[in-house]
Amino acid sequence: MVSTASAQMKGTPVRVAVDVMGGDFGPPEMVPGAVRAAESGRAAVILVGDEAPVKDELAKYGAAARLVKVAPSVGKIGDDEHPVHALRQKRQSSIAVATGLVKAGHADAMVSLGSTGASMAAATIALGLMEGLERPCIGGPFLGLAPRTVLVDLGSSIDCRPSLLLSFAALGSVFAHHFLGVENPRIGLLSVGSEDAKGNRQVQEALKLFRQTQMNFVGNVEGMDFFTDRADVVVCDGFVGNILLKYTEGFGAALTHYLRSQLTGTLPAPAVERVANDLWQLTNLPRRGGGPLFGVNGNVVVGHGSSKAEGMAGAIDTAARCVELDMVGNMRQELAKLNQQLSSMAPQSGGG
Amino acid sequence: MVSTASAQMKGTPVRVAVDVMGGDFGPPEMVPGAVRAAESGRAAVILVGDEAPVKDELAKYGAAARLVKVAPSVGKIGDDEHPVHALRQKRQSSIAVATGLVKAGHADAMVSLGSTGASMAAATIALGLMEGLERPCIGGPFLGLAPRTVLVDLGSSIDCRPSLLLSFAALGSVFAHHFLGVENPRIGLLSVGSEDAKGNRQVQEALKLFRQTQMNFVGNVEGMDFFTDRADVVVCDGFVGNILLKYTEGFGAALTHYLRSQLTGTLPAPAVERVANDLWQLTNLPRRGGGPLFGVNGNVVVGHGSSKAEGMAGAIDTAARCVELDMVGNMRQELAKLNQQLSSMAPQSGGG
Repeated sequence: MVSTASAQMKGTPVRVAVDVMGGDFGPPEMVPGAVRAAESGRAAVILVGDEAPVKDELAKYGAAARLVKVAPSVGKIGDDEHPVHALRQKRQSSIAVATGLVKAGHADAMVSLGSTGASMAAATIALGLMEGLERPCIGGPFLGLAPRTVLVDLGSSIDCRPSLLLSFAALGSVFAHHFLGVENPRIGLLSVGSEDAKGNRQVQEALKLFRQTQMNFVGNVEGMDFFTDRADVVVCDGFVGNILLKYTEGFGAALTHYLRSQLTGTLPAPAVERVANDLWQLTNLPRRGGGPLFGVNGNVVVGHGSSKAEGMAGAIDTAARCVELDMVGNMRQELAKLNQQLSSMAPQSGGG
Repeated sequence: MVSTASAQMKGTPVRVAVDVMGGDFGPPEMVPGAVRAAESGRAAVILVGDEAPVKDELAKYGAAARLVKVAPSVGKIGDDEHPVHALRQKRQSSIAVATGLVKAGHADAMVSLGSTGASMAAATIALGLMEGLERPCIGGPFLGLAPRTVLVDLGSSIDCRPSLLLSFAALGSVFAHHFLGVENPRIGLLSVGSEDAKGNRQVQEALKLFRQTQMNFVGNVEGMDFFTDRADVVVCDGFVGNILLKYTEGFGAALTHYLRSQLTGTLPAPAVERVANDLWQLTNLPRRGGGPLFGVNGNVVVGHGSSKAEGMAGAIDTAARCVELDMVGNMRQELAKLNQQLSSMAPQSGGG
């Protein structure tokens, strides 16, 4: 649908370094997920993890195990550790080694369902931020009910200056266009009213900046607009985005539970399960495909820690698609365009 | 369940001034809602609105119309108007007149489903803020799935200092205790991780303050914790709260629509409607009872503009209960206690 110069040679599978120590389940779910992705031919998978448990796990997959490579690492970085400190101390940890493979050119992408902070820090330090960007962000569709609406940032940058929201919009817009096939994505700024004057200071300042660019900016959008198709890319800081993401997951889980209990006995069991599963899918999108990290000079996909094998396979697929679509190159280009617009308007902004 | 000194004499119905010009539907829905509340004996209702349309509407209710009084006003303040400017120019508008009745002692409470900003400004200017409070807030349960969890602020104070979040917690806690009957409500600060270090600057600063008080503070809570019963009062600024509120409404509406389409033909029509209605109720709580404004020296309940007669009747009921429970007196007392704690810790905080 979208034509783009691919950084990837046709027919060569994308090489994805996979942190199999991450996630709540570690190797017992991460390894089968990675093997499944390798079997599908979707990617050439390099498993990064402690040698013993990875080999034990691989032993269960017979011939399929030979489809993946293993790059040994030592230990992992936990969710409760300070990402930068932990990376300094654990240079052989799975996230550090996997990111290092991308940096060294041995892999085209890295996937981890482990500590998001550590993946982000490793990517930022090892691969570097794109020019003109202050911090990276995580974006993508997060709600099955709005599968083509990108929310950015989903939680990587908690305190954001207004100008950073502008960069996030540019990155999210590239993703919506190339990954989701949305022509000229409409960008909305998440706020508490549609009028320009509505919003907190951060959003009011950001809105003025948005209005000065050539972006396809549709103005402020509100909480209900995820369901009204007013914007393809909804921009907020990682604080708001992460609260929405987790709220949505909790909401979906609670409603699924409620409906299952309500419908059981009223509908045949398979029909109840179908409705419950549909509802789960409609509310828990990121568990399926992971969320790409935008703004670093390399392809990194992070995923929900509670994901199982299917979530890992989905995240690998997301990573492979990002490489094939040259997401990094396209994002760099869009940021450069934005920075040019910003620098050309700088002399005027002093008068406003 | 909760014993409290009532400001209201037993047997005397609470007098509620009702702005019938507000809401998306105005008198045709607001008047019947108010008449219904009067018929139930729940409150002595004073309709505030343009004389002609109010009388036209009342003419439809025969004898029941004689249960309500009418206080004429001129015009209304729209959602798109600047609240304070509009109040200055439209001194006879329905919100101004209704609030004036409370100030003059002719009514015990005011209810409006019109401009929230105008109700808040009118209440703040005419009734005044409670001592030690910088801004008011709107709170209450907002999610049918968590009907005893109070979210505060739902959208009245968009930019909040950390110390204001502390006041909101105190106010929300009084509401949870007296209105919802929660013993010693657990207070949580809405953030992006449960650890103390997680959150944006505002929340991190606020958390330090919370930890120094004698509040029943359970720490940071996350988006999913509305469904995990970790806190009875969840505190955030009005920016985040309002986004969550509107997101929830949109989410509920979209899921109801989805389920209706999925179940139609699978279940008998009445069963489909029952599930759809349940789902709607589980996700659209504030449309039923309105949200009380906390922190002003008077009882004010605002409601969703899209509410119909039932929503107005529910908001009047909420207002009457707030008066009966002496919510204002109890909140004043709790704020005074908090301010005492804050002033006693002030000398130490310079060293921290």
